[in-house]
Amino acid sequence: MPDKTLRIDRAGLRDSGRRPVMLAIAGDSASGKTTLTAGLVEALGRERCVSLCTDDYHRYDRAERRSLPFTALHPDCNYMEIMEQHLRLLASGQPILKPVYDHSTGELTRPELVEPNSFIIVEGLFPLYSKLARACFDVTVFLDPHEDIRREWKVQRDTRKRGYAPEQVLAELAVREPESEAYIRPQRHHADIVVRFAPIEGRDEPPGTPLSAELLLRPTIRHPDLSEVLQAGLNRAMHLKLTRDSDGRPVDTLHIHGYVPTEESLAVQKAIWASIGEPESGTPDCLGELGPGARSEPLAIAQLLLLHHLLDAE
Amino acid sequence: MPDKTLRIDRAGLRDSGRRPVMLAIAGDSASGKTTLTAGLVEALGRERCVSLCTDDYHRYDRAERRSLPFTALHPDCNYMEIMEQHLRLLASGQPILKPVYDHSTGELTRPELVEPNSFIIVEGLFPLYSKLARACFDVTVFLDPHEDIRREWKVQRDTRKRGYAPEQVLAELAVREPESEAYIRPQRHHADIVVRFAPIEGRDEPPGTPLSAELLLRPTIRHPDLSEVLQAGLNRAMHLKLTRDSDGRPVDTLHIHGYVPTEESLAVQKAIWASIGEPESGTPDCLGELGPGARSEPLAIAQLLLLHHLLDAE
Repeated sequence: MPDKTLRIDRAGLRDSGRRPVMLAIAGDSASGKTTLTAGLVEALGRERCVSLCTDDYHRYDRAERRSLPFTALHPDCNYMEIMEQHLRLLASGQPILKPVYDHSTGELTRPELVEPNSFIIVEGLFPLYSKLARACFDVTVFLDPHEDIRREWKVQRDTRKRGYAPEQVLAELAVREPESEAYIRPQRHHADIVVRFAPIEGRDEPPGTPLSAELLLRPTIRHPDLSEVLQAGLNRAMHLKLTRDSDGRPVDTLHIHGYVPTEESLAVQKAIWASIGEPESGTPDCLGELGPGARSEPLAIAQLLLLHHLLDAE
Repeated sequence: MPDKTLRIDRAGLRDSGRRPVMLAIAGDSASGKTTLTAGLVEALGRERCVSLCTDDYHRYDRAERRSLPFTALHPDCNYMEIMEQHLRLLASGQPILKPVYDHSTGELTRPELVEPNSFIIVEGLFPLYSKLARACFDVTVFLDPHEDIRREWKVQRDTRKRGYAPEQVLAELAVREPESEAYIRPQRHHADIVVRFAPIEGRDEPPGTPLSAELLLRPTIRHPDLSEVLQAGLNRAMHLKLTRDSDGRPVDTLHIHGYVPTEESLAVQKAIWASIGEPESGTPDCLGELGPGARSEPLAIAQLLLLHHLLDAE
């Protein structure tokens, strides 16, 4: 039971203060992992935070994958055992020489040294795939945007940044679907927090309404007490509802509304930021950033809750 | 004391039969590491033996090194901590994703998976550099050819295989000398066996006489009993002498003569091979091979003694 040994080792390390806090952000291709991660890294500061992407553990490059019977979403297409080994090393405060997959060329290139830091954010297709990998994290997130939204995001990104044509992206999505179902989506079950960006029917109707988000807060970790924030007349921007997860487990669902005026959302953000107890400064501007000039207030709120967990776990 | 923990872990593994036998072959550039290794890998068979070179742990590529104040022989020019980590993982039966340095281009490229096997041979500039690295090995060798011989070998190889001009190689040797003295040669002290190829004065005079070899057999491991081999009238090809090492430690020195007729040397090889107890076949042809059509009988004898140690440690 290497996962148990690891948990014991890490519990020991915690006392000595050398143990990094680790956050997993799992999700399918173009589910928003990089955007979520970027804001968190900037808010925490690069001097105490390092992030890495598990796509770097691809076993085959793009050219090699063309003649293989599976896509990059299949565990056999990735060095899963090495990914686990590296997560385990980082979790116990050791450096790794991480492989590098270059998304712009589809090539595997020169590896790079990753030194552990106070906070380590690991995003990718597989961080919650195995028991041993999951044992390395303090907080785990699964990104589960509405499938129509994810397809839109994927077409946009892959045509702009990775040199594909739209019909190539759609064909690739179809090929990937069975592996996405078999290997990626089941990781949702293991996340402490599931983040779902989706329009709310009836409320987000006018095109251009900012997307809302639904956060499943599973009782697998201790979530912040939001009662004060929610009672301060801010429940139009956000409200909490006791529900059952699709598998029947009790869960809190936090609804964050994209359609409310920005000021109301900013007031919620201010209140959460104050509750984190990072005193001197205002809410970091980097939170909620989608790209140059584009923002999402529900994203900012999701990031603030994750910051709470990271700083609380330290 | 991670080296102690490792020794304890490995001793435990030994009982369960999953523990690879590891041989280190350390030595300066062009000291004959690759040639020695190649014969051993072939004799053991690729199905049960894997070899790797620690040059792959270079931190900088050739172009980057040009503007640095040290050469590849400096520990700061290598990922020493990662090398130790990988040796430790292999020693405990785990795979690694090894970096790759391409000597023909001087570039760092896509890493490759190395799965542990029954025998792991690690050759390079640094395998005996640190206490933790040394703790990973069952048998350790340092190659210490006569410096004139090594220079000759280096010029030959680097001009033929790595695209350098002779004067470039000689200039590089001069630049490297202080780091060779500071970081590479001290590893000789930690080897169980020191292999020195050198002409014997007075006996190897006619040009073209095959090089003799001197093997320092330190009592840090149990060496095979050669008395029977040496008494069978074969002591013209090889003889053993009790001496003191340069630091005063008692040591056996095995002199293997290059100038004796090949048949006498082959008889010694046959006797050692029989003593190893690999019954069915004759001495493997790959032993002693220097390249296409070129052989060294003293090399073959050195390799046979190492095979004895590897098979004995299993």
